[in-house]
Amino acid sequence: MTTNERVAYFNGQIIPESQACISIRDTGFTYGNGVFDAARTFNGQIFKLTEHVNRLFHSLKYVDLDIGLSPDEVIQLTLEVTEQNLPLLGPNEDYWVFHRVSGGPNDPLAAMTSPTVVIECTPLPLKARAPLYRDGMDVAFPSVRRIPPECLSPNVKSSNYLNLTIAHNEVQEHSPGAWAVLLDTRGFICEGLGSNPFLVRNGKIYTPKGQYVLEGISRQTVIELANKLKIPVVEDDITPFDAYRADEAFITSTSLCVCPVRSFSKKPLQDEAIPGPITQKLTEAFSQLVDCDFVGQYLAQLG
Amino acid sequence: MTTNERVAYFNGQIIPESQACISIRDTGFTYGNGVFDAARTFNGQIFKLTEHVNRLFHSLKYVDLDIGLSPDEVIQLTLEVTEQNLPLLGPNEDYWVFHRVSGGPNDPLAAMTSPTVVIECTPLPLKARAPLYRDGMDVAFPSVRRIPPECLSPNVKSSNYLNLTIAHNEVQEHSPGAWAVLLDTRGFICEGLGSNPFLVRNGKIYTPKGQYVLEGISRQTVIELANKLKIPVVEDDITPFDAYRADEAFITSTSLCVCPVRSFSKKPLQDEAIPGPITQKLTEAFSQLVDCDFVGQYLAQLG
Amino acid sequence: MTTNERVAYFNGQIIPESQACISIRDTGFTYGNGVFDAARTFNGQIFKLTEHVNRLFHSLKYVDLDIGLSPDEVIQLTLEVTEQNLPLLGPNEDYWVFHRVSGGPNDPLAAMTSPTVVIECTPLPLKARAPLYRDGMDVAFPSVRRIPPECLSPNVKSSNYLNLTIAHNEVQEHSPGAWAVLLDTRGFICEGLGSNPFLVRNGKIYTPKGQYVLEGISRQTVIELANKLKIPVVEDDITPFDAYRADEAFITSTSLCVCPVRSFSKKPLQDEAIPGPITQKLTEAFSQLVDCDFVGQYLAQLG
Amino acid sequence: MTTNERVAYFNGQIIPESQACISIRDTGFTYGNGVFDAARTFNGQIFKLTEHVNRLFHSLKYVDLDIGLSPDEVIQLTLEVTEQNLPLLGPNEDYWVFHRVSGGPNDPLAAMTSPTVVIECTPLPLKARAPLYRDGMDVAFPSVRRIPPECLSPNVKSSNYLNLTIAHNEVQEHSPGAWAVLLDTRGFICEGLGSNPFLVRNGKIYTPKGQYVLEGISRQTVIELANKLKIPVVEDDITPFDAYRADEAFITSTSLCVCPVRSFSKKPLQDEAIPGPITQKLTEAFSQLVDCDFVGQYLAQLG
Amino acid sequence: MTTNERVAYFNGQIIPESQACISIRDTGFTYGNGVFDAARTFNGQIFKLTEHVNRLFHSLKYVDLDIGLSPDEVIQLTLEVTEQNLPLLGPNEDYWVFHRVSGGPNDPLAAMTSPTVVIECTPLPLKARAPLYRDGMDVAFPSVRRIPPECLSPNVKSSNYLNLTIAHNEVQEHSPGAWAVLLDTRGFICEGLGSNPFLVRNGKIYTPKGQYVLEGISRQTVIELANKLKIPVVEDDITPFDAYRADEAFITSTSLCVCPVRSFSKKPLQDEAIPGPITQKLTEAFSQLVDCDFVGQYLAQLG
Amino acid sequence: MTTNERVAYFNGQIIPESQACISIRDTGFTYGNGVFDAARTFNGQIFKLTEHVNRLFHSLKYVDLDIGLSPDEVIQLTLEVTEQNLPLLGPNEDYWVFHRVSGGPNDPLAAMTSPTVVIECTPLPLKARAPLYRDGMDVAFPSVRRIPPECLSPNVKSSNYLNLTIAHNEVQEHSPGAWAVLLDTRGFICEGLGSNPFLVRNGKIYTPKGQYVLEGISRQTVIELANKLKIPVVEDDITPFDAYRADEAFITSTSLCVCPVRSFSKKPLQDEAIPGPITQKLTEAFSQLVDCDFVGQYLAQLG
Repeated sequence: MTTNERVAYFNGQIIPESQACISIRDTGFTYGNGVFDAARTFNGQIFKLTEHVNRLFHSLKYVDLDIGLSPDEVIQLTLEVTEQNLPLLGPNEDYWVFHRVSGGPNDPLAAMTSPTVVIECTPLPLKARAPLYRDGMDVAFPSVRRIPPECLSPNVKSSNYLNLTIAHNEVQEHSPGAWAVLLDTRGFICEGLGSNPFLVRNGKIYTPKGQYVLEGISRQTVIELANKLKIPVVEDDITPFDAYRADEAFITSTSLCVCPVRSFSKKPLQDEAIPGPITQKLTEAFSQLVDCDFVGQYLAQLG
Repeated sequence: MTTNERVAYFNGQIIPESQACISIRDTGFTYGNGVFDAARTFNGQIFKLTEHVNRLFHSLKYVDLDIGLSPDEVIQLTLEVTEQNLPLLGPNEDYWVFHRVSGGPNDPLAAMTSPTVVIECTPLPLKARAPLYRDGMDVAFPSVRRIPPECLSPNVKSSNYLNLTIAHNEVQEHSPGAWAVLLDTRGFICEGLGSNPFLVRNGKIYTPKGQYVLEGISRQTVIELANKLKIPVVEDDITPFDAYRADEAFITSTSLCVCPVRSFSKKPLQDEAIPGPITQKLTEAFSQLVDCDFVGQYLAQLG
Repeated sequence: MTTNERVAYFNGQIIPESQACISIRDTGFTYGNGVFDAARTFNGQIFKLTEHVNRLFHSLKYVDLDIGLSPDEVIQLTLEVTEQNLPLLGPNEDYWVFHRVSGGPNDPLAAMTSPTVVIECTPLPLKARAPLYRDGMDVAFPSVRRIPPECLSPNVKSSNYLNLTIAHNEVQEHSPGAWAVLLDTRGFICEGLGSNPFLVRNGKIYTPKGQYVLEGISRQTVIELANKLKIPVVEDDITPFDAYRADEAFITSTSLCVCPVRSFSKKPLQDEAIPGPITQKLTEAFSQLVDCDFVGQYLAQLG
Repeated sequence: MTTNERVAYFNGQIIPESQACISIRDTGFTYGNGVFDAARTFNGQIFKLTEHVNRLFHSLKYVDLDIGLSPDEVIQLTLEVTEQNLPLLGPNEDYWVFHRVSGGPNDPLAAMTSPTVVIECTPLPLKARAPLYRDGMDVAFPSVRRIPPECLSPNVKSSNYLNLTIAHNEVQEHSPGAWAVLLDTRGFICEGLGSNPFLVRNGKIYTPKGQYVLEGISRQTVIELANKLKIPVVEDDITPFDAYRADEAFITSTSLCVCPVRSFSKKPLQDEAIPGPITQKLTEAFSQLVDCDFVGQYLAQLG
Repeated sequence: MTTNERVAYFNGQIIPESQACISIRDTGFTYGNGVFDAARTFNGQIFKLTEHVNRLFHSLKYVDLDIGLSPDEVIQLTLEVTEQNLPLLGPNEDYWVFHRVSGGPNDPLAAMTSPTVVIECTPLPLKARAPLYRDGMDVAFPSVRRIPPECLSPNVKSSNYLNLTIAHNEVQEHSPGAWAVLLDTRGFICEGLGSNPFLVRNGKIYTPKGQYVLEGISRQTVIELANKLKIPVVEDDITPFDAYRADEAFITSTSLCVCPVRSFSKKPLQDEAIPGPITQKLTEAFSQLVDCDFVGQYLAQLG
Repeated sequence: MTTNERVAYFNGQIIPESQACISIRDTGFTYGNGVFDAARTFNGQIFKLTEHVNRLFHSLKYVDLDIGLSPDEVIQLTLEVTEQNLPLLGPNEDYWVFHRVSGGPNDPLAAMTSPTVVIECTPLPLKARAPLYRDGMDVAFPSVRRIPPECLSPNVKSSNYLNLTIAHNEVQEHSPGAWAVLLDTRGFICEGLGSNPFLVRNGKIYTPKGQYVLEGISRQTVIELANKLKIPVVEDDITPFDAYRADEAFITSTSLCVCPVRSFSKKPLQDEAIPGPITQKLTEAFSQLVDCDFVGQYLAQLG
């Protein structure tokens, strides 16, 4: 293909994105009946693709969707789609690589027999997020609570983000640019829209328990890096007060990897350096692992 | 138009359904970021369209979506779409009339500026559901609990149905054909996938409190009819045990109007008549109100 | 007394305020071990003083404090203190009249034998709050939840306001001037710092159930006035979504009486008039009852 | 100064205690708007003063109070106040050293700009509590539950003790002399009025998780001593049944250090020795650490 | 039969009580797998026997036990057993009449096919409880909470009383003779061991909602009597504070009918008369209804 | 004794089972007021009898029952009863050995002074359960939740099984033969009727926390065996989703020891081998420990 349009895998074929068309009766569109996963490239290489695809298959099992493809086939298709799209990236840019599966065009009460499957690449919003690495993120706790595990597993990357979206919107209304991190129904710090929070205090790292959050692959990567660096990591219930008395804090997500936090509820952190020393160590270790100075990649966009 | 394809309103135009195409990056598809409403026709007339459209606008306010249309404009468009589709109905058939709005093709973290708006007609699944009126519905309580109001308002008809869907799936696995009615996080009877449960005991009607459910327009209609018939209605917390000791029970939904229940958790109701006498009175009053023998319409499909 | 210093009742005597001195070991100061009540004057007359004093005595019973005075004696002392202070008011001004009782200077673990008792008058902050009547209040829901009844009865006007204060502070940080209305631990709308919220929708008034809030005497007054005006009042669990879809809303408190709300979480109310028509009716009925145009009194300060 | 009156730091000056005078409008008195900390001396030396002052500053951040002093300045002032008061102690006596900060004399709704700051010494109630070391403490579980973290952080030593006080009162009414240990809102053992409970079973020590309690500095000291003594310590949810089946139990607090428990809900412990062997080991290690036989100091008061 | 031994219905026969023998493998004995009901006689007549038997059959449905008898047959057998036992009563004495059904001698995992059925009469403990009518009951709130409806319906009179028994024991340990009234898991007043609490305040009667308690037939009788007497009755969540500020209070149970309360948590009621005026009115109405001065019957035992 | 009837210890004597007779007023029968324990034999030897008896005594303390026997005496009596019953076992059979204590024949409100004590042997249902080892167990999650610790300690093996029984019945109705594993009131996996669930994922073993379940002695045995085998065991909150994504799963109970699971909610496990490799290792280690091929013992019954 010689056009400069990106391609996507769509229900059995790799086609130009603009030709992929979701039905207005697709239960993914009508009822959010679907799951997805989101990996990213570093220098064009997809990071931990196997882990992302395995998680996708666990999610599919939870919602009883069978896509008729093996994990290996999904990996293969993902590599092909990405390969074809790489030439369209600018210098020092990278992709989000999304897998999305929905119940397909169907009645919600009928058996879900023909899922919609999409694999696509979206350029990372490097420029928009670059200031976060320079200044640190401002985190706000919305009044809306995260859906508890007894209703919908937060470990499943489902297409039902409205709980996270209304929390995000609530925060944007009063604090434009701040990041919403929801509390769970017990009032403990939980997670944001596709992001996992970490606190650092007295040399220890704290993050919410895996039962209550999407166990991000970046989150898991940071935990493993901390283990290697002999920095203790505690997965436990943490409170807003723990955030206020933290020395440092950071957020992990697929696109951000490790991004420093500057304040919680407008209270600056104890250690006002951005990033704090342990955040910096983890950032360096992460960069080394992915062989990409992702902070530099973001900051380069500041012009 | 002389084809026999139904039309839909889609982002400013009324077009054949097959030409309405949702982007693979529509946040309605990717994150379930949307709301909808569902009315139905009786003899081709849409029932309580104004109430449905008003509820849609409340839902839109909750999720911060602005569609650039007034309620009156939406009503007008709905009537047009329905008008054009009516000739395609078979005899004694009727339509579901859906309004669907999503955040549109966009990044989840960016402002939601160009929503996707769909108005479409779907023929009611009369045949598939006809046996329910003859035999009564079997209701099962899944282990999954309904999302509590502190996380996502159940009063908003949002496109995030996964909580309801996995509960429905859980029940289908062990009791094919049964209807899932979820319990709320306190263990009280709540609601099913687009349906509201009612119990009858000692001449009184009981239904869960409006705070915990989608306050269905059929639910509201039945409450008003009961008031007119001087049958007391209590909106209160009700338990599975209340279901087991109920004399009669029924489900309301847009498509079903009033449909009798035969059993809860496989325990038959005290009064085994289908429908029970109060259910029958309400069914007749409902039929009169909509000027359509909806039960007859369903049963006619049994052939 | 010919000075222009206000007097207060303090542990048995009426003395100039500046001579009333709380010990640094008073358990009211060290542990918030105390209760209070707050009435106000209209044209110099204390409104519903008996109701306030009765509530004070219920609060005292809850915390096991015995002040050695009968309700009648407290009423008598209150009238005396107020009488002496009235000459110090400017024209068109009024007083808050506070009763405060603490455990007195003592060890927290010992029997509480000599409570500290204060009765004092504070001029109402008319000027600071005047804009609220012109513009309406902006209400925000903080992430901090109200203490549940199983821990501390919200019906008792206790001196433990920190839960309310940190919620107020959280809101001030991101929305200066907005009023915090906390949600309860179930996520329903509860109360603010000394204030009770009301919603109006389809001609009905809604306010949170008495079990979860300080049952304000202004709240009770408004309920009685609505009853007289034949406007239905429902005490029930109400949600943030109920606030978003409300036609009008207002706050009651001792000082504010009835004050219109303009927005919840920055979402303007459906009916943007300030005050809305039912709020206006209640405001007029309240003014008539207390024989004071309290809105005019506030607005006069706008200069 | 040659009098025998103790001095206190009060808003910028060290003055005789009787000259320190809290306003009747100090929000510490009117709304419990404040925080504090409590250290103690052993042989006249303050134990872990730096830890106490650091905790005070975390508490201040939580309630948004700024006292215009650095931690070092507070430490310096504390040492001066204590120094001046030490000559007034009898032989073998010691002090509680309290820091107390409130919002100061102000309107609760206005910005809190001039906090009240007190540093004072109070002789420990050695005589009153001496029998506890001889007989062991009787612990009772009140029906009132501890305020959950989502409402007010229990990690903050706030001046809002009413929840603890009413629980204490409830227990005193039916079991004079017993110590109330509250359960949290989930029914797990939590904490008492300024005290942390510990259980010993099968050679392991159990204490409630830090998220739900004031993480006492004596609690932390005991955990560190147990670590040194190679006695495993588990911070976890523990139940009343765990208390009933415990071999030993003890309470830690600033004043009591380590004090043995004799019974829970009137059920004697499995091992009826007072103190049990592990409690005794920790008591000895604590005494060594603080260079003071604190049990002997208490028991000497029995006469 | 000419002996003075009482008879009981036992699995198909009416036999002397001593010949009724429960197997050590009866699941009623081994797992509390059973339900019961308890009526009483007044002057030898069983009160509301039909209501008790209907409730028994609802309970049986809940636990899936089928006794092979119709409600009418059970009523008939009950009358026969009682008839035969009446001659053994002393003057002015009455019976409790119990129905008990268990799963029978069986493996807990097997189908429950042959239930054990008992109908028996037990003389009421008039003497032991007589002082309650003279002095009023002392009510205490234990720390143990009542099992919530989502685990076991409190509306079912099941043979699983351990939750109530340990709460009763907890109270007996510290307050011998007091009656335990448990709080529910939300901290609201719930019920005691076979008893329903009522409060009276400002001329209104309050009792916990039916969803959370065994809806006692005496409770229902009192509600109906109050309706007839035009005394408003509110079924709602009530708190310990509501008890402390109540004017009067009473307990209903099958054996006690209506019995006045003197104190809650050792705090005497506002109105110290025993019984209070509304309690007295209800007592008289109850006596009239059952044609028996039940208070006199109890007090006669005081000798 | 030369008969072929089994004997039981019953209130002081060892007698033929048929002579042991529980009163119809035994509070164990009427109110489930009792506790029990259940050991089993392997080749006629009772496994961990001391641990079972110690747990029984903890249970007795919880419910305030005193049987007037020491643990050693109970052990001695148990051995005697078992000894006498062993000759009645067929080849390759074994016994459940039960201890059961109830409050005895008494009024529920009176002091419990003469408990009923039973020690008996029941042949294991080897034949009925044999298919579980061949096919694996199907586990279903009922809608009924497990009673929370704040109401009744799940660590106590009480005779109040109705919560477990109705959950079991609910599952039997829709999935005959499946095993019910209840979720706790937070929605995490808890326990079944006398059984503890375990999951295996990525080489780690997961089981619910001891606070929420009967800490089975087989559960504890498996944890110790895993420790010896260096297989990590995590006691933590686990969710239904954790079950769906588990590689293997098994159930432990006194009779089953270790029994493989085949599916949860009809979803087959990731690794469909029965048993999975880690389950197999633990099975072998368990067999070795008890010196009995218990799986072979069960499978031999398949004929």
